[in-house]
Amino acid sequence: MGKSILITGGARSGKSSLAERMTLDLGRPAIYIATAQAHDGEMADRIALHQARRDVDWRTVEAPRDLLSALRDTDGTAPRLVDCLTLWLTNLMLAEEDWQAAVEALAEALPAQSAPVIFVTNEVGAGIVPENALARAFRDAAGLVNQRIATACDELWFCVAGHPLKVKPA
Amino acid sequence: MGKSILITGGARSGKSSLAERMTLDLGRPAIYIATAQAHDGEMADRIALHQARRDVDWRTVEAPRDLLSALRDTDGTAPRLVDCLTLWLTNLMLAEEDWQAAVEALAEALPAQSAPVIFVTNEVGAGIVPENALARAFRDAAGLVNQRIATACDELWFCVAGHPLKVKPA
Amino acid sequence: MGKSILITGGARSGKSSLAERMTLDLGRPAIYIATAQAHDGEMADRIALHQARRDVDWRTVEAPRDLLSALRDTDGTAPRLVDCLTLWLTNLMLAEEDWQAAVEALAEALPAQSAPVIFVTNEVGAGIVPENALARAFRDAAGLVNQRIATACDELWFCVAGHPLKVKPA
Repeated sequence: MGKSILITGGARSGKSSLAERMTLDLGRPAIYIATAQAHDGEMADRIALHQARRDVDWRTVEAPRDLLSALRDTDGTAPRLVDCLTLWLTNLMLAEEDWQAAVEALAEALPAQSAPVIFVTNEVGAGIVPENALARAFRDAAGLVNQRIATACDELWFCVAGHPLKVKPA
Repeated sequence: MGKSILITGGARSGKSSLAERMTLDLGRPAIYIATAQAHDGEMADRIALHQARRDVDWRTVEAPRDLLSALRDTDGTAPRLVDCLTLWLTNLMLAEEDWQAAVEALAEALPAQSAPVIFVTNEVGAGIVPENALARAFRDAAGLVNQRIATACDELWFCVAGHPLKVKPA
Repeated sequence: MGKSILITGGARSGKSSLAERMTLDLGRPAIYIATAQAHDGEMADRIALHQARRDVDWRTVEAPRDLLSALRDTDGTAPRLVDCLTLWLTNLMLAEEDWQAAVEALAEALPAQSAPVIFVTNEVGAGIVPENALARAFRDAAGLVNQRIATACDELWFCVAGHPLKVKPA
């Protein structure tokens, strides 16, 4: 069984860089499963920045919504990095898919994976309660996704200013 | 003297579930001291969700503002869970009570409690500075409440994606 | 070489109080390097509050933007406390200076310091993504500043409800 790891933290806390190092430590080349979609110029810039940090060590697969199939199709010996669950949730909600069923199916599929998988996600719930009801619903959903996947994963790390704190196993 | 514990974390970080498990580990049945008031439908839904997770192991007491009396009235052998301090602060501020005096009195009352008490609170200060002056004042107050009660408690836990990190004792 | 420490956390998480205790533990009197500028009454109140907590043990130097010169000018035997990097970044951005060059120069100057330096900074990236593009740009910049300085420092601490969690060295 492949090890599963969840890395969480605030914006620009160094989650993706840490996840990339952890993934490559588990084997090269590795597979980068991108959930990002370039909705606007700002996001396109972020994707380009992330891609610029990867090189010949990586093969990229795009999976904005069907993460389960992407994990099944890439399962073998190469470690996988999924970046990130928060954007995956956003894409599911925008497409009006059943995100709760999708996260449950994802969590249940993890124990059967042969190759390791490292997930990146975001902390979005530690600010003031948003005035916008949609934003409140999203931060609730993001928190539930993080809890469910963290419970299914072997390891949980919290990134602070680019440095990891191990949360699980305690 | 009853042990006192503060559990903090962002929205949907699993604080309440953790607090419920910790409370029941200290004794059954336990007492649930609810500070929530159903101001609107969204909050009523959250309260119903929280209640659905409790069962015959719990007796519920409502204390939207007078937490000190609730602790005194429930002190005995059964462990108490106070969920949560952030809503308690909100209720005090809305009623224009002296929340600073109330939190000081609460902190000073903890060492004399015979039965354990577990508090749940929220991290609201790790986002961008709110544009709204009232929101800034609230997040300052919430941070001060958390500091004061954390200092008075024997243990402090920080919840990340449903998993606890022990902060105190170090 | 003087030890360098970065202390981060949310608003009202007790960062400044912790940093003041850590600084005085390294020697008295100490030097307080203030990056704050009293743009408005609210900020003036915060500065006054911070000053009220300091006494004869402290000498204060103001450095809203040129932190590098302030560190050079104060380097000797007395420990320095820089409070805080987030306001320093704000000041640089408002003055349209090259903050990326400034943070790189600051990070590179740390190993050559003779006296210890303790930095306070803020977590601003763990809330919901701000709707305001400027706020998003600021939280990205603040996160990058925190990562760069954390990497350059010997120690990194994360403050939760007034209590420190050591992140680095792990």
